[in-house]
Amino acid sequence: MKNILDRNSNRAEENRKILRDNGVLMVNIISSPGAGKTTLLERTCEALSGRLRLAVIEGDVTTDRDAQRLKKFDIPIVAINTEGGCHLDSHSISKAMENLDLATTDIIFVENVGNLICPAEFDLGESFKLAVVSVPEGDDKPSKYPLLFSEAGAVILNKTDLLPYTNFNTGAFMSDLRAINPGLRVIRTAVSKGEGVAEWLSWLESRLHDISAG
Amino acid sequence: MKNILDRNSNRAEENRKILRDNGVLMVNIISSPGAGKTTLLERTCEALSGRLRLAVIEGDVTTDRDAQRLKKFDIPIVAINTEGGCHLDSHSISKAMENLDLATTDIIFVENVGNLICPAEFDLGESFKLAVVSVPEGDDKPSKYPLLFSEAGAVILNKTDLLPYTNFNTGAFMSDLRAINPGLRVIRTAVSKGEGVAEWLSWLESRLHDISAG
Repeated sequence: MKNILDRNSNRAEENRKILRDNGVLMVNIISSPGAGKTTLLERTCEALSGRLRLAVIEGDVTTDRDAQRLKKFDIPIVAINTEGGCHLDSHSISKAMENLDLATTDIIFVENVGNLICPAEFDLGESFKLAVVSVPEGDDKPSKYPLLFSEAGAVILNKTDLLPYTNFNTGAFMSDLRAINPGLRVIRTAVSKGEGVAEWLSWLESRLHDISAG
Repeated sequence: MKNILDRNSNRAEENRKILRDNGVLMVNIISSPGAGKTTLLERTCEALSGRLRLAVIEGDVTTDRDAQRLKKFDIPIVAINTEGGCHLDSHSISKAMENLDLATTDIIFVENVGNLICPAEFDLGESFKLAVVSVPEGDDKPSKYPLLFSEAGAVILNKTDLLPYTNFNTGAFMSDLRAINPGLRVIRTAVSKGEGVAEWLSWLESRLHDISAG
């Protein structure tokens, strides 16, 4: 296992250097199944594809359903079918990157496999990990899956429109998160209703400016 | 990987034989994080602990929060902290079984780690796998994670009280399930409201009678 992670880590660093040399921001999106990754990507592509050059790498265990949902946008999509595998790794991302024109790309979104555990262990070379967690999953997710939340560059708390119908304790969620990763940016959204999406986009664009400036 | 699965499989068969010899039903509960496994167990223990001899094996990635939630019931609980591992395996279950008095146990519930992928690959020696999936996760889970649903002995579709607030298509969900596993029993619940729990308990007891008769 340590060998696998070391080899993954080496290739991730190569990916990261290539991305940096080409001024590309890569966002590794990780969540449970059904937390809203693909819907977030749909809204993000809708808003940004006119003025930024986007690409998507779609990880799916068996189908290409998520890739299909993004085909309506005129952006390059590389689908990776993990054939049962529970996470993407830096080698599959490296191959996917070969199919993208990095020189004319601003942001690559990687939609990882729906799983809070294994994807958190595998560095892909991304600029940052985005953890997406949804209200109906419950407020105890940070404390139960701390690795992801300690590694994340931002958290989206999605499906806040369901807060009235669940016993989700926002205070407990935030205080558990702060204990794991004190400075972490948390963005509250109800993506399917469009709520909070503007805040997410503005934070994302600030990250793009950081790498352009850096 | 094949070696690991073969070794797991051998030990699972040993577990299965021991359980059968002792007339114990083992239920391997698998779901995404936050689908409602622990709440289902709470309601089940509440209803049955007076007249059946229950035990629980709790798998958690880092904490023992789920085990803590079940301590109010006077039943044996063995907590397995996988230390980051994404699933339980038959070896850890075998060790846990050594800490239970099988001769005086009717049902062992195994709460697997919150993950739809890896736990489906590892036979524990259970009598059947119970897949728990919740409405807010979306109706596409069977087609995206078919292994679990093809292996399951029953599916609980939980959080049906959230149907009015989501775009979950029950027809699509059921027809995808039928395509993967035609005879699969599907029980609709809103466990936190107590809805559908009686149907689940009655189905569970019929399984217990099957093994006593068999």
